[in-house]
Amino acid sequence: MFKGLSAFPLTPFKDEDIDEQAFLALVGRLVEAKVDSIGVLGSTGSYMYLGREERRRVIELSVREAGKIPVMASISELRLRDVLLLAEDAQKAGVSAMLLAPVSYQPLSEEEAFSLYEEVSRRASVPICVYDNPRTTRFTFSDDLHGRIAALPHVQSIKIPGVSDHSVEAKERIDRLRSVVPENFALGISGDPCAAAGLNAGCDAWYSVLGSLFPKVCLELTRHAQAGRAEEALRVSERLAPIWTLFNRYGSVRTAAAIAIRQGWMSAPGLPRPLAPVPVSDIEQIADYLNTLS
Amino acid sequence: MFKGLSAFPLTPFKDEDIDEQAFLALVGRLVEAKVDSIGVLGSTGSYMYLGREERRRVIELSVREAGKIPVMASISELRLRDVLLLAEDAQKAGVSAMLLAPVSYQPLSEEEAFSLYEEVSRRASVPICVYDNPRTTRFTFSDDLHGRIAALPHVQSIKIPGVSDHSVEAKERIDRLRSVVPENFALGISGDPCAAAGLNAGCDAWYSVLGSLFPKVCLELTRHAQAGRAEEALRVSERLAPIWTLFNRYGSVRTAAAIAIRQGWMSAPGLPRPLAPVPVSDIEQIADYLNTLS
Repeated sequence: MFKGLSAFPLTPFKDEDIDEQAFLALVGRLVEAKVDSIGVLGSTGSYMYLGREERRRVIELSVREAGKIPVMASISELRLRDVLLLAEDAQKAGVSAMLLAPVSYQPLSEEEAFSLYEEVSRRASVPICVYDNPRTTRFTFSDDLHGRIAALPHVQSIKIPGVSDHSVEAKERIDRLRSVVPENFALGISGDPCAAAGLNAGCDAWYSVLGSLFPKVCLELTRHAQAGRAEEALRVSERLAPIWTLFNRYGSVRTAAAIAIRQGWMSAPGLPRPLAPVPVSDIEQIADYLNTLS
Repeated sequence: MFKGLSAFPLTPFKDEDIDEQAFLALVGRLVEAKVDSIGVLGSTGSYMYLGREERRRVIELSVREAGKIPVMASISELRLRDVLLLAEDAQKAGVSAMLLAPVSYQPLSEEEAFSLYEEVSRRASVPICVYDNPRTTRFTFSDDLHGRIAALPHVQSIKIPGVSDHSVEAKERIDRLRSVVPENFALGISGDPCAAAGLNAGCDAWYSVLGSLFPKVCLELTRHAQAGRAEEALRVSERLAPIWTLFNRYGSVRTAAAIAIRQGWMSAPGLPRPLAPVPVSDIEQIADYLNTLS
């Protein structure tokens, strides 16, 4: 499950409701491209903006459409009670794994965050991936906390934020994490601009935004890294630089939405308001480049 | 509405549901103490952890119990569609004002935050107070943005975060804000340890956590400041130092919950998990002191 390219599709919105046809088409293209797994309701999938029924529907649709490709879904919410309900829904709907972030309104203490993972892992019947995304959760894991959570039953992966561009620093970071988690525990890189660096440094998976839009080129990058062709992986990443520039400026979800709209894969504005996609003018500047990717 | 002591009660939880009796008793004590207004579903009232029906119920109960004392309620949510529904509910239930924070999962741009206030203000029929709380929302308002939002219809107050202890710096901050908002616009201080400094610097209101537990002493502080007795206001605040220490260490909501439990006003744990109140041992250390306040 936690290996190779895991593509995180958008949840397209149309008039404030989920555009199911557009969503199915996005997932369908990932199935066709044979990504290694699909991560629905990630940050890219706007999970925190969706109600319980909406989340259930997204999972049902994706599990059906994904066929044999395993589906992971986020079950995060502010209140533990709601997280447990979402976990139940997700497992009933047939997810292969659950992604859990320490989202908060009142910033969480380490003990509060640990108690969240402890309670969920106690009730889980599928693997759990820890979602470490300080940009959106504003929660910073200590390595000690990562180690304590990784030792809980069902916890089998961490989706880590970006690592350094420097291969030595990236390797040090991954080795340090490896030293606090059990053997055969999966580390997955997110922050697409760092994907090649993360995979080259020893990550098992790439939890990818761009992989949900352009799976082919992202699979190419992943396969190079998996085969130890570090330089080739970096070269593929360098080819994607115009997109990384937008990711860094506007955030990946606003960029992904604007690209999907430009490609005709969903209707504008596509995101739950008040979020807004990258301005059309910025996307038009890289229109020719996007044509080379699809 | 936006003047004097505005007390923000807890929303007590019991077995993950709202303890309505405990909530009514908390509000009843504020009515008896004659606070100037009541702010339900603030951060202290755990608004972000509550569903739509729960929020509607809290507002209904408080408006009924508050009688002639005006009630303000938070209508914040991640998705604009939900904010508009909550605003409708709150206005139907009889709130005198609405509190709106730019809560986010994906960090908001200035334009996205502005669009949120613009859309809500267009549909509002009661005054709106801008909730500026970078600790929980992780959104930082520029003064320019404050000015643009303050010029929108119905926007009449800002609930500002703490100001400097230094009276000159505090005055400079309040004067600077005054220069970007319309005349007769209300600035209200929050961050209880800064209340005296904020009121002395010219704030119109104190949006208060402690005022919901010990309204008498907080009214005393407020009335001193309102009458220009700056030194006396500061002396009252200094008397509250043992509580400010806990606020600064654990956050005000965890402290308020632990105090309310200790006083017998609600059952443990009282907060929506995974949030946990201040450990009993810390509260017991100031037990004698708390007895002098109640």
